[in-house]
Amino acid sequence: MPTLYHSPHTRSSRVLSQLMLMGKLDQVTVAIVDIVKSDGSGRKDPNNAHPEGKVPFLVTDDGGTIRESSAIMMYLDEIFGHPFSIKPGAAGRGSFLSWMSYYCGVLEPAMVAHFAELDHPILKSTFRTMTEVGEQIASGMGDDLFLVGDKLTIADIIMASAFQWAPHLIPEDPTVKAWIKRVEAAQDGIGLKAFETQAFAALKM
Amino acid sequence: MPTLYHSPHTRSSRVLSQLMLMGKLDQVTVAIVDIVKSDGSGRKDPNNAHPEGKVPFLVTDDGGTIRESSAIMMYLDEIFGHPFSIKPGAAGRGSFLSWMSYYCGVLEPAMVAHFAELDHPILKSTFRTMTEVGEQIASGMGDDLFLVGDKLTIADIIMASAFQWAPHLIPEDPTVKAWIKRVEAAQDGIGLKAFETQAFAALKM
Ligand SMILES: N[C@@H](CCC(=O)N[C@@H](CS)C(=O)NCC(=O)O)C(=O)O
Ligand SMILES: N[C@@H](CCC(=O)N[C@@H](CS)C(=O)NCC(=O)O)C(=O)O
Repeated sequence: MPTLYHSPHTRSSRVLSQLMLMGKLDQVTVAIVDIVKSDGSGRKDPNNAHPEGKVPFLVTDDGGTIRESSAIMMYLDEIFGHPFSIKPGAAGRGSFLSWMSYYCGVLEPAMVAHFAELDHPILKSTFRTMTEVGEQIASGMGDDLFLVGDKLTIADIIMASAFQWAPHLIPEDPTVKAWIKRVEAAQDGIGLKAFETQAFAALKM
Repeated sequence: MPTLYHSPHTRSSRVLSQLMLMGKLDQVTVAIVDIVKSDGSGRKDPNNAHPEGKVPFLVTDDGGTIRESSAIMMYLDEIFGHPFSIKPGAAGRGSFLSWMSYYCGVLEPAMVAHFAELDHPILKSTFRTMTEVGEQIASGMGDDLFLVGDKLTIADIIMASAFQWAPHLIPEDPTVKAWIKRVEAAQDGIGLKAFETQAFAALKM
């Protein structure tokens, strides 16, 4: 079984949400680890296999290692038969890959720059800002229900997770707002919360 | 045929290099467009289909659009039969996905922060710095020839492209240096240079 290194209420929570959505939580070993939080609390956990002590991190059956949420989510989706993605060769595959890369290559840096209150021309010219991110989501979706047509994919889970985590950054756009609600409703929020509460308690011990 | 929006000597040049490596340059329409350069020269080209005027950008046969180099390179590799990647299900797939996401999610932001001379704790805690990037490449490769075992993939092309573009950032590590040389040698540098010279001349007209 693959092992997922997870810390409650972090970026690895969306991988858990994906596993729950797929009904595959029992087919992955979840190792609960501590991390250094942005406020300096916590610690680099010696039990975390990630070379820099981050989460999420996945160790595959053949001992391979995967870092970065987008890669881990694509891998898990693939080994369980592509339930929440668009398969290679299928219509919409390009758009799916585009949003997965957009998350890590644009949304995350733009959001981090926002939180760091950095307003540097080089950051802006490379990544643009959260304003453009909102515009791109709205125009990219058009009249569709999800980012890639009317099928919920892990592109929705990872893109919306940023706004679920920082609701004050949700753009004042009805299309985007309705999309975030839709993605949230598709996930098992109650199940995730219960899991996280237990994980948090385990970590405290 | 898919259309690739390209501007000479930019991030889209690595997509061209990939197409040459695959021998598929004649199966993609290359539209040469201008962009706003970091020094302020150039312009947002009305002929560029990218919503923000960036390159690379790919329009697929079914009218789908793909932004971000990593997504475009994965898509092109897939439609031409996966010659420079690891197929879903094959050994090394996880590592391949990990490096593709690491490029856009870590290397690019860390390099951009470096160029912007930003030394902010939030940037560092999220992306780390070019020092860690060098360490991760060296330890990730071990004794292998390329990032994913002994097979050249687009993960090598995209990761090494950053150092080909900014050679002063090449870490003082013999493993990393030898790897960059190997990736460079595998590409058709002369063919690419000739293409770029023509593209540049076409743009000037
Ligand atoms: N881009 C990475 C970011 C991973 C990341 O920075 N995770 C945070 C938790 S939200 C972490 O592990 N921080 C601890 C540290 O950086 O030492 C991803 O999406 O997987
Ligand atoms: N992360 C993107 C970056 C794309 C990008 O910023 N490209 C530059 C050229 S190197 C560009 O088009 N700049 C013009 C602009 O931002 O308006 C990718 O790798 O595709």
